[in-house]
Amino acid sequence: MKGTVLHGPNDIRFEEVPEPKIEKPTDAIIRIAVTCVCGSDLWPYRGISPGSGPTRMGHEYCGYVEEVGSAVMAIKKGQFVVGSFATSDNTCPTCNIGYQSSCVQREFVSQAQSPYLRVAHADGTLVATREAPDASMVPGLLASSDVLGTGWYAADAARVRPGVTAVVVGDGAVGLLAVLSAKQMGAERIIVMSRHPARQKLALDFGATDIVAERGEEGVARIMELTRGLGADSVLECVGTGESMQQAMRVTRKGGHMSFVGVPHGVEIEGQALFFSHIHLEGGPAPVRRYLPDLIDLILDQKIDPSAVFDLVLPLDQVAEGYKAMDERRAIKALLQP
Amino acid sequence: MKGTVLHGPNDIRFEEVPEPKIEKPTDAIIRIAVTCVCGSDLWPYRGISPGSGPTRMGHEYCGYVEEVGSAVMAIKKGQFVVGSFATSDNTCPTCNIGYQSSCVQREFVSQAQSPYLRVAHADGTLVATREAPDASMVPGLLASSDVLGTGWYAADAARVRPGVTAVVVGDGAVGLLAVLSAKQMGAERIIVMSRHPARQKLALDFGATDIVAERGEEGVARIMELTRGLGADSVLECVGTGESMQQAMRVTRKGGHMSFVGVPHGVEIEGQALFFSHIHLEGGPAPVRRYLPDLIDLILDQKIDPSAVFDLVLPLDQVAEGYKAMDERRAIKALLQP
Repeated sequence: MKGTVLHGPNDIRFEEVPEPKIEKPTDAIIRIAVTCVCGSDLWPYRGISPGSGPTRMGHEYCGYVEEVGSAVMAIKKGQFVVGSFATSDNTCPTCNIGYQSSCVQREFVSQAQSPYLRVAHADGTLVATREAPDASMVPGLLASSDVLGTGWYAADAARVRPGVTAVVVGDGAVGLLAVLSAKQMGAERIIVMSRHPARQKLALDFGATDIVAERGEEGVARIMELTRGLGADSVLECVGTGESMQQAMRVTRKGGHMSFVGVPHGVEIEGQALFFSHIHLEGGPAPVRRYLPDLIDLILDQKIDPSAVFDLVLPLDQVAEGYKAMDERRAIKALLQP
Repeated sequence: MKGTVLHGPNDIRFEEVPEPKIEKPTDAIIRIAVTCVCGSDLWPYRGISPGSGPTRMGHEYCGYVEEVGSAVMAIKKGQFVVGSFATSDNTCPTCNIGYQSSCVQREFVSQAQSPYLRVAHADGTLVATREAPDASMVPGLLASSDVLGTGWYAADAARVRPGVTAVVVGDGAVGLLAVLSAKQMGAERIIVMSRHPARQKLALDFGATDIVAERGEEGVARIMELTRGLGADSVLECVGTGESMQQAMRVTRKGGHMSFVGVPHGVEIEGQALFFSHIHLEGGPAPVRRYLPDLIDLILDQKIDPSAVFDLVLPLDQVAEGYKAMDERRAIKALLQP
C-alpha cells in the first residue's frame, strides 16, 4: 500500500510502505475511514523537531476493524472504532486514575496517514460505536481521536466549570475546540487570543464571547482589563511556545488554573515567575481515552459538532498539500480520505 | 528599640531601629511574644538573594496587640494574635478563593525579629485566640505563622488525602512540618528524603514511614522501588533548588500532584520534561491565613504539636547566633525571645 512519509523539512511523500500486520495478540488492524494532519505534525515538517531518517506520519484516525489479534476480546472485526494517538492497556494503575496517555504500556501511534493502521492494545485503546455511523458523523468522530480530545483536556485540566471566565491562548484547531469544550463545560465568558479573521469567526461560532488580537504586554493588559485586573479563572494554553506559555501564565488569576496541551518547544519556565503567579498548572499528552466514550456520545447525539475545524478535505494521496496548506495557515486542519 | 538588621552576607546585627507606629488606620502594633529565623532568611544571609543595603528581618510572629488603627474592627488591644508573613485584606476576590498570600493589597512582613511589629491590614491578617494561651502553647502557635502553615500548604496543594503515598523532598523545618501535615491529612505512607540523622528522627516522630537518604538518580530509583515503579501520588517539594524540583517532578506519578512551597532559586523547568511528567503542579507563597483558624484550634486542642522544630531557643539579642546555627545546620530552627 501507499502511506505518508516525512523525508525531511517540507518533504512529505505518499509512497509505498509495508502493509501493517498483527504483531502481538493484543493488536488490531484498522481500515482507515478518514485521517488528518495534526498541528504537532508541523513541528517535524518544519524541521523544528528533526526525525532521524524517513518517518511514517499520522496519529488521528477512525475506521473499521479489519482484523484482531487472538487476545483481543472487546473489539470485533467490522466495528467502527475511534482510538487515541497514545495506546493504552486501560487496566494499569495510571490508566485507572484516568491518565491513559501515560499508560505504563503506552505506544505513540505514528502511521495513521495511510489506508490501514496497526493499533496496539486494541481493547484498551479503541472505542467502538454502537453501529456504523452515518457518513456525516465521521469527521466529528475523527476529531475526537485527538484534536477535540486535546481541546477537551485543555478545558478539563484548566478546571473549566459553570460560570468561570476562560482564556484560550491559540487559534489552531486545538484552541478552537478548546473553545467548544469550555462552552460545553459551562464557561460564562470565553476569551480567545487570535488575530486571524476566519479563525476568530469559528471561535465565535464555537462559543467564544471575546476576541483579543493583541499579543505580548498588550495582550496581557487587554485580558486584565476584561477580568477586573485579576486574570482569568481558567487559561488553556494550546500552542506550546515559550511566548504562549508566558502569556498564559500571566493572565491566569492567582489561585486559578492553567493547562498546556501542546508538546512544548523551546520552553523554560522560570521558577520564581511560576511561584509568584500562584497558579495550578497541569499539562501533558491529553488522556483522550478517558474522554472518548462521552465525546462519541456527544457527537452522535448532535450535542457538539467539532467537524468545522476541517476546512480542507483532500484525497489521502494529496497529503503533501494538506501539510503545506496548514503550514502556510491557509487551512486550519486538513482531513484526508483514503 | 533594638531590632534585627542584615547588613550583608553573614552579617546580622541586633541594633537600634525606629519603633513602629500606626501608619494607616488599618494597621495594628503587636508586642512580639516570640519570633524565629526562617529557612528563607538564609538566602539573603548567604548572599544568594542580595538585598540593597541594610535590611530589617523577620516575618514569623505572634504576640499581644498593643495598639490598633481607627479602622480596625475585629482585632482588639490586648488580644493574643497570630499572623501570616503576607498581609491580606481577606475581602478581595483573591482572598475570597483562599489565596490570601496573593491578596491584591498584600505586603510582605519583614521586621518581625524585633520586640514590636506593625502589621498592615490587621483585620484581614491577624487571627486572635479566644484567650491568652498558656506559655507552653506559644511556640506551636508561632509555628503556625509560617513554617507550619507552609508545610500544611505543601500537603494541601499536593492533594494529600487519606490513603495516599506522599514524598517530602527536604528535611528543613518546612519539610518536617509537611510530614506532620501529610500525616494529619491521612497519608498512609510518607517517604522523607533526608540524610541528617536528627532530622530523620524528627520526621519519624511526625509520622514519616520511610526515609530515603539517596539523592539524584539513586534517590529517584529508590522512590520508584517503594512505589511499584509508578512514583508517589503526592510530592511535597520543600527546598526550592533546581535539583530538588527535578527530584520532586521525577518521583511524582503520572496524574499525581506536586507542590512547591519555598521561593525557587535558580530554577528553570524544562517544558517537555514537565509535559511528559504529566503532573499537577501548584506552588507559591503559602496562603497561611486560609489555614490559621484551623491550625490554631488543632494546636490549642493538642491534636498537633509542631513546636519540636524549634531545637534552639535564644534571647532575641542573640539572633545572629540563631542564623549561624541554622546556616551551619546545627539547628533546625531558632526560636527568639524578646
